[in-house]
Amino acid sequence: MFNQEIYAARRQQLKAAVKQGLILLLANEESSMNYKDNLYHFRQDSSFLYFIGIDRPSLAAVIDIDKDREIVFGNELTMDDIIWTGPRETIREQAAKSGIHTVQPLSDLDTLLQQARAAGQTIHFLPPYRADNAQKLSDWLDIPYAALKSRASVPLIKAIVAQRSIKSDLEVAEIEKAVGITVDMQLEAIRSAREGMTETEIAGRVQGVAVSAGGNLSFPIILTVNGQILHNHYQQTVLQSGQMVLCDCGAETDMHYAGDLTRTFPVDGAFTPLQKTVYEIVAAAQQRAIDALRPGILFRDVHLLACEQLAEGLRDIGLMKGDVKEAVAQGAHALFFQCGLGHMMGLDVHDMEDLGEAYVGYTEDLQKSTAFGLKSLRLGRALEPGFVLTVEPGLYFIPELIDEWQAAGKFTDFINYDKVQAFKNFGGIRIEEDFLITENGSRLLGKPLYKTAAGIEALR
Amino acid sequence: MFNQEIYAARRQQLKAAVKQGLILLLANEESSMNYKDNLYHFRQDSSFLYFIGIDRPSLAAVIDIDKDREIVFGNELTMDDIIWTGPRETIREQAAKSGIHTVQPLSDLDTLLQQARAAGQTIHFLPPYRADNAQKLSDWLDIPYAALKSRASVPLIKAIVAQRSIKSDLEVAEIEKAVGITVDMQLEAIRSAREGMTETEIAGRVQGVAVSAGGNLSFPIILTVNGQILHNHYQQTVLQSGQMVLCDCGAETDMHYAGDLTRTFPVDGAFTPLQKTVYEIVAAAQQRAIDALRPGILFRDVHLLACEQLAEGLRDIGLMKGDVKEAVAQGAHALFFQCGLGHMMGLDVHDMEDLGEAYVGYTEDLQKSTAFGLKSLRLGRALEPGFVLTVEPGLYFIPELIDEWQAAGKFTDFINYDKVQAFKNFGGIRIEEDFLITENGSRLLGKPLYKTAAGIEALR
Repeated sequence: MFNQEIYAARRQQLKAAVKQGLILLLANEESSMNYKDNLYHFRQDSSFLYFIGIDRPSLAAVIDIDKDREIVFGNELTMDDIIWTGPRETIREQAAKSGIHTVQPLSDLDTLLQQARAAGQTIHFLPPYRADNAQKLSDWLDIPYAALKSRASVPLIKAIVAQRSIKSDLEVAEIEKAVGITVDMQLEAIRSAREGMTETEIAGRVQGVAVSAGGNLSFPIILTVNGQILHNHYQQTVLQSGQMVLCDCGAETDMHYAGDLTRTFPVDGAFTPLQKTVYEIVAAAQQRAIDALRPGILFRDVHLLACEQLAEGLRDIGLMKGDVKEAVAQGAHALFFQCGLGHMMGLDVHDMEDLGEAYVGYTEDLQKSTAFGLKSLRLGRALEPGFVLTVEPGLYFIPELIDEWQAAGKFTDFINYDKVQAFKNFGGIRIEEDFLITENGSRLLGKPLYKTAAGIEALR
Repeated sequence: MFNQEIYAARRQQLKAAVKQGLILLLANEESSMNYKDNLYHFRQDSSFLYFIGIDRPSLAAVIDIDKDREIVFGNELTMDDIIWTGPRETIREQAAKSGIHTVQPLSDLDTLLQQARAAGQTIHFLPPYRADNAQKLSDWLDIPYAALKSRASVPLIKAIVAQRSIKSDLEVAEIEKAVGITVDMQLEAIRSAREGMTETEIAGRVQGVAVSAGGNLSFPIILTVNGQILHNHYQQTVLQSGQMVLCDCGAETDMHYAGDLTRTFPVDGAFTPLQKTVYEIVAAAQQRAIDALRPGILFRDVHLLACEQLAEGLRDIGLMKGDVKEAVAQGAHALFFQCGLGHMMGLDVHDMEDLGEAYVGYTEDLQKSTAFGLKSLRLGRALEPGFVLTVEPGLYFIPELIDEWQAAGKFTDFINYDKVQAFKNFGGIRIEEDFLITENGSRLLGKPLYKTAAGIEALR
């Protein structure tokens, strides 16, 4: 936890922005695997962590702006609990550490909410993303399950996005810690991968590094010789000589800040000449994007710069043709780069994704495109000092997509399908790093890790 | 997956036992961590795996006994899905592998259930343990959320418990694979633990072993120098010289069968004389229990034998006094052994816990005791060939409980509180192995792992 002044100040700023009503923040519940008491590792809700700071399930917090009171609701441990789980800090002690001095049993919350509703108070809540919390909100507020998302508080969402988007120095330090652990995860993958191992053998070691460091994974590891599959979680494939491994992974610190890095490396320790050529195209696109990072620039435009650089590289090796700016404007490059350049990162690896991309990555004036490729860009809006984001261009040769586009005759002015056909078994390459937007530009977060083809080869 | 004849035969046996009506089995959904699309590793429902065999979320299966039809409900991947997750086997292909040849979109299920209800068909379903599936059942069957558990089908539960309790040779082989990986996890813990490391550092490596082997953890790792805390998941403590580490962990294979082993070992590689003395008491109790395992014996009685052996040992070192049988009958030993001797194990580490202990571990004639200690014994009923279970006695010195009992003057005829006080910092010791009940006795599952004090010391 940070110190209590920080949490108190965050809540103060939130109240000032939301202005009136009652803010209801829900902690997450434990999540069951195959029976009720067999649990996944507990992951607290990030906004609850941000404003309340208590990393414990089955709590709720009320920040009542109108009545100027803050209450944490939860049930303290019984003697029976203590025998099984050991003595723990009480909720009262934990709440005090974030500057909240009123703790009531969970059963009191329903009554409080009934009274607030009867008095016509606005009850601000966030869109739920877990069924158990949705069920609770539906019961307490008498809102049909299916209507919860649309009835979530837009003023609360906007206020929280505004606050959490700007990372404090302490938060940046915690993110750098997460990135540092992620670097160690990448080194474990790069150094241990050998022909004949399964993907999962390596992924297990990588996960072990994250857990050993005192936290966990910030998202499920992508570690695959099929790098063209963007979110591949099938990991039983055996590594073969000549292949590349794409490893996209992140640690989460014990305070739940995330890291997120990708490296693509050769099973044999050395890239083939063709792999190196394509790798350098991705690296050049990443550098072009990094060089453009600064306050005020639209991240959508940074994305498009990277796309143009990718298209240039693909034109140089004969896979694309024609004017690269025009190709990118029309979306032809998206055959090879189907997703976005990056996303916000913080307490969530896709920071605040539960609050809605329309608020986190876009604005009322800049709505997300519906075009293939751009529709997967999570962040488009103008950058501000304090933003933390990923820069992760890639080239992905997806056989099903290549065949579909070729059959449909799409973008034949820009794509040399005959040459592309030869790449259907190439796989995919991604390079990803995490950056803080500074007053003048950007700063790479975490300890450095080689990302040139030669650097990657030197790590083995 | 096993071959399709096995799944078909299992369903045939189930239909014969349930006799009439429509059996509705729900697959699990993906579980969200901190936003909808950031997922815990997927864990399928075990009964769904057992009868349908498809390891994939968002499915349901109907086994309609009255109309003699079997249908899997689920939505096939779209082109958009394939770009992100890669091409996968279709649901139709997967269902065929378990002998089901009718696959319909999920949206058809609601209609089918409405028709079945209108026709007055019995709809058998299992008690839900996840909120999302509870919500679905509540909607489909028009049963209030809170009433779902009591409206679950007892005939279905009893039939499934009868089937899943008896493990086939193929299942035993899969469980042995899980136990084998668990042995490797234990070796990793015992060999890597050193003074100055945190518990979590070791736990991370142990988890890495399980994931690297192609599966996952069968339950959250308990790895702690505070072994007296029965389900301790706080792992930030630094290992100190002279302490013991209790490691209770299990692997789950890629087919989701579980292993579950506990070892308690010294940080320094060698036990102190007092630690060795207490260790040997637990070891003797475990051996007494193992020797008693055979078809027909009540596991409750095996538990009580182990308790008597523990009490004898504690009497020998002066912590208890008086007649050990009488002490155990009255429950005095439960100051040191607060929980049960073991539990069923299979597709779940506490096998079928979601179906209810009253059906899995007890019978109508043998109900669970409500006495402290015995109330935590998950399995009491007569053993049968084919049962797989754990044997895991322990001695736990819980300061809060010792003080509570002493203050209340409990069992002063059997407990020497003055001597017990000196053990308040001793911690806890548990030894756990997994057994198959055979025609004549029992068989230890998985490759062997030292469990004597001398053996544990030799592993370092």
